[in-house]
Amino acid sequence: MPLWHVYHPPGAYTPGQKQQLSTDITQFYTSFGLPPFYVMVLFHGVAADSFHVGGEPNGAAVRIVVEHIARHTEDPRLRKRTREALATLLAPHTAERGLYCEFHIDETPRDLWMIDGLTPPPPGSDAEQQWARDNRPTPY
Amino acid sequence: MPLWHVYHPPGAYTPGQKQQLSTDITQFYTSFGLPPFYVMVLFHGVAADSFHVGGEPNGAAVRIVVEHIARHTEDPRLRKRTREALATLLAPHTAERGLYCEFHIDETPRDLWMIDGLTPPPPGSDAEQQWARDNRPTPY
Amino acid sequence: MPLWHVYHPPGAYTPGQKQQLSTDITQFYTSFGLPPFYVMVLFHGVAADSFHVGGEPNGAAVRIVVEHIARHTEDPRLRKRTREALATLLAPHTAERGLYCEFHIDETPRDLWMIDGLTPPPPGSDAEQQWARDNRPTPY
Repeated sequence: MPLWHVYHPPGAYTPGQKQQLSTDITQFYTSFGLPPFYVMVLFHGVAADSFHVGGEPNGAAVRIVVEHIARHTEDPRLRKRTREALATLLAPHTAERGLYCEFHIDETPRDLWMIDGLTPPPPGSDAEQQWARDNRPTPY
Repeated sequence: MPLWHVYHPPGAYTPGQKQQLSTDITQFYTSFGLPPFYVMVLFHGVAADSFHVGGEPNGAAVRIVVEHIARHTEDPRLRKRTREALATLLAPHTAERGLYCEFHIDETPRDLWMIDGLTPPPPGSDAEQQWARDNRPTPY
Repeated sequence: MPLWHVYHPPGAYTPGQKQQLSTDITQFYTSFGLPPFYVMVLFHGVAADSFHVGGEPNGAAVRIVVEHIARHTEDPRLRKRTREALATLLAPHTAERGLYCEFHIDETPRDLWMIDGLTPPPPGSDAEQQWARDNRPTPY
């Protein structure tokens, strides 16, 4: 968590551009104290004839699915701020390069989640901060 | 929203057959007033040795994952009608062509969803109707 | 249901190793009485430059997404037991082979789910037991 799936036209991103996007995503979450290794970004190239928008093949659209597990909030203002921050983060990688972009975030249960055989520590706990400092999961 | 992932045997659908399926899906949602461009359908060919059903490789199964964001209902009769309508829609593209088919729909939060940097307008609003007429997102 | 997506380095699993993992997964669920054909496991090879962990390309990580539909529980002890059982199941296929592994389970609504045009029978019902014995869906 978070897990990002980026579905994109096959040639849309070079390895360097993927790197830059995943760096921006990772920095977004580490700024809230999450361990960097919590952030996984998977890129999936999908050819236009397998990527339909409004019933038509599309070679210039990016669809992003985000799964949030470690942190959830019910506060409408925080939720608005989150979606707007991600839209801002994504703009240079999508709209500003002529790529149409839609994303949504799903929230899944924290207690059905494991990393390397360990139950991730509670939000903000000493153990989570230790994981963030070490950038790897360790028994706690 | 809706986002459809269609996992299928690599040779199961020609580009024309993908087009027909995505057209049928799009018409289903636009009949309820949704903008056509809300409907994204991604096709993913998965080889039999990577597509296991009941612990066995399978070369004749289709697994569909649907994400609903723009519209949710709690009414059990409407939910039944939705799942049955989608099964009917899918039959000519699956069972009637000898392909086993399973699908499920997930429902994700509307307030964690953005299109081209914009928060999609409320269900049934004037702005949503405008988006449907224009078939593209515009500031509102 | 359950649907497993296994995102892995392209060369991580031979067809035989995929078979073994999907057999282990299937046996886990059938031990609770689920029909074997309910269990679908899809393998997706993702190259290192499209598989980022903590903002870096990674060629030795496995990310698994599980969708549970047929059975949900609210009991915290059962949920703990489920996640730990799956971690144990996965260890020989991941950690013990030098592969870092993260997984999470999502739970989606049972009443938005169809198999081969049929609404799956209620949990533990005679019809579900019949489906388990037949290992295929039949009208009930």
